[in-house]
Amino acid sequence: MKTVKIGIIGLGTVGEAVLKMLLRYRNLIQKRSSLKIEVVKVCDKDKNKRGITERLGVSFSEDPFSIIDNPHIDVVVELIGGIRPAYDYVIFALRKKKHIVTANKALLAQYGAEIFSLAEKKKVNIGFEASVCGAIPLLRSIKEGLIGCEIKKIYGILNGTTNYILYRMSEDSLEFREVLKEAQKKGFAEKDPSLDIKGVDTLHKLCILSYLCFGIWPDQSKIYTQGIQNISSLDILYAGELFYSIKLMAMARREKEGLFLRVSPALIRKTHPLSQVGSSFNAVWLDTYPAGELLFYGRGAGGFPTSSAIISDLINVAEAPPFFPKEQKNIKLAKIENLKSRYYIRFIAQDRPGVLAKISKILASFRISIASVTQKERRKGKFVPIVMLTHEAEEKDLRKAVAGIDKLDIIRPPTQLIPIEDI
Amino acid sequence: MKTVKIGIIGLGTVGEAVLKMLLRYRNLIQKRSSLKIEVVKVCDKDKNKRGITERLGVSFSEDPFSIIDNPHIDVVVELIGGIRPAYDYVIFALRKKKHIVTANKALLAQYGAEIFSLAEKKKVNIGFEASVCGAIPLLRSIKEGLIGCEIKKIYGILNGTTNYILYRMSEDSLEFREVLKEAQKKGFAEKDPSLDIKGVDTLHKLCILSYLCFGIWPDQSKIYTQGIQNISSLDILYAGELFYSIKLMAMARREKEGLFLRVSPALIRKTHPLSQVGSSFNAVWLDTYPAGELLFYGRGAGGFPTSSAIISDLINVAEAPPFFPKEQKNIKLAKIENLKSRYYIRFIAQDRPGVLAKISKILASFRISIASVTQKERRKGKFVPIVMLTHEAEEKDLRKAVAGIDKLDIIRPPTQLIPIEDI
Repeated sequence: MKTVKIGIIGLGTVGEAVLKMLLRYRNLIQKRSSLKIEVVKVCDKDKNKRGITERLGVSFSEDPFSIIDNPHIDVVVELIGGIRPAYDYVIFALRKKKHIVTANKALLAQYGAEIFSLAEKKKVNIGFEASVCGAIPLLRSIKEGLIGCEIKKIYGILNGTTNYILYRMSEDSLEFREVLKEAQKKGFAEKDPSLDIKGVDTLHKLCILSYLCFGIWPDQSKIYTQGIQNISSLDILYAGELFYSIKLMAMARREKEGLFLRVSPALIRKTHPLSQVGSSFNAVWLDTYPAGELLFYGRGAGGFPTSSAIISDLINVAEAPPFFPKEQKNIKLAKIENLKSRYYIRFIAQDRPGVLAKISKILASFRISIASVTQKERRKGKFVPIVMLTHEAEEKDLRKAVAGIDKLDIIRPPTQLIPIEDI
Repeated sequence: MKTVKIGIIGLGTVGEAVLKMLLRYRNLIQKRSSLKIEVVKVCDKDKNKRGITERLGVSFSEDPFSIIDNPHIDVVVELIGGIRPAYDYVIFALRKKKHIVTANKALLAQYGAEIFSLAEKKKVNIGFEASVCGAIPLLRSIKEGLIGCEIKKIYGILNGTTNYILYRMSEDSLEFREVLKEAQKKGFAEKDPSLDIKGVDTLHKLCILSYLCFGIWPDQSKIYTQGIQNISSLDILYAGELFYSIKLMAMARREKEGLFLRVSPALIRKTHPLSQVGSSFNAVWLDTYPAGELLFYGRGAGGFPTSSAIISDLINVAEAPPFFPKEQKNIKLAKIENLKSRYYIRFIAQDRPGVLAKISKILASFRISIASVTQKERRKGKFVPIVMLTHEAEEKDLRKAVAGIDKLDIIRPPTQLIPIEDI
């Protein structure tokens, strides 16, 4: 039986869960894989973690280079997160021809091109299943299960914190700030939740999916990214009345103009399985050929769920030949301004004659046609919400039209503009 | 670049799709896998199929042994379905040390133990992704993605035909017979649909999942299997009013009594993602440790979707070391009579005083406690539907109680009894 010798850098929630699960399921894993996984060393900058590894009978060090430079280690598991010093550890380990297993989406989104090209040069493997959708075997499914397929569209709920917040806002008609506080108390949101709520974490994962599915590492700064901080419980209510849910959506669409990528809240019809993804769950819906439509759903975070992905990667990097998605011909990033979608628009407008005429005139001047309008209240002379759904229109026209409308004195800006994803 | 040489036996819808997709995505597959797949020969008993292969530039034969005995072929793809002669072809090919790729669930459910043990002896691989849930990379996900996990529960919608029928019955309040005819016209149901509607196809797939997840090939004849032919649109309506959907469910549950396996219609709460699986889609929900809850959803049948699974298997059997799930210690099949569930019971009973008393008395004598009762109509002296939900009770007590109740002259048998799966 072949033994895979590993070193783990970073003993946080995930690292500790990996250690415990490797121990608990040692026999199961050996039976299923014909591989024995041996944890040679675990490293953490916090020397108080030594106790954990000693209880589990594993050697501890505060020095990551005792793992990176260790000739007896085949696989380096990087679980410290963040960009520095993780970047250095990964690069040094690759130079030493170690396989890498990592859950670090921020690192891959920024330095993926360099990291994967170095791995290819050194003929070693990178396991990154845990970096997108934690426990869901999504990346494995795409690269192996769908090896003979083209992926045409991706719609993903890739961040548990924001899904939990939107779910709670919708269940109990609560406002964003209240739910965020609740989520922080329950440990579903970080103390500094900005990476999550501003959509940056989702963006990182979309970059990784873009590489895996299309062979392209996009420039993060060029991808339109909007978070959920401006979604109000009113919008969730009005969308619900129209039979839509609001979800923070990572989107990739191959159209004739190129590859459109976007992170933003979106309206999803309530009969679509994605709209039913509640609490802090993650889910990804793929439109593929010839496999058709697929949905993957599960836990996107948490030490124990994520440890399952890490362990699966440990076996895979040791067993399978290195895999590097290649850039597909004729794919280039398209400008999101040119993407056509239907839109939900919610104005706060003065309740007086002629208001709708003024709004419609501006929309018409940008060739935006209105599918439905509802004024939600009647309060003569006061400001009230008006909800509009548009027919398909280009993003740039929508933005310009709304900017124009927001300058009218009958409008209290900012107007809410959310794309409808007709999946 | 390594070349994998394959022969395909059976050129039906799936076989033809595999051929076309291998041709269309030749470059994509080579790029992703570093493998070249060469179709050496295709065989079908219908010589008129020669035209198809000739157009695609592939050699044709009517003799399966020109593939099985061919020393230049590494992988035999069996796509004829049914038990004979597929069994012989697979056994002969294994003896010749060929890898097998098959979509044949009936064959595996019946002869899986023999086939996999021969493959293990001959050190060759069996790819069977397409045998359960067609295009969904489910088996790959379980054996690789969840390699370090225990699976505690499986709930699967594994048959597209029955899901389509139940879905249409529910959408338009139609009766089983009407929808079956419609489904046959549209090609969603076979001319002889009995394997599907009686739950036998679902049973085959459950046996395969039982092997993959628990290492056990169960005796099919010992698994309680009920189809959808007795579900009426009334039951779907009443279940819907109670906020449940009715789905044909393959169930596996590891409890302290052992492994419970069952195929039967079941009530699923409408907020659960499985209840939203519409049309002819398949889906499987898993409860695992430590990966947590997972759901996989996609196309379960159709030539092109299924070809995606076959192609993925072709790469896998050629690249990966053979994989054979081992029987897990301490797992044995439990008797379904001892399984505890809540139940939906629908009586047709005479509308007169004392009816409920008689029914409840019998239920109470079997320790079955009632959670809710609704009489659906009032028509004095006539027979009207009564719907009951029970608290948890053992299956054997339910069956005995209902048998007793069905003998009352105030009851028009048979009473409908459907388990509620509290997922």
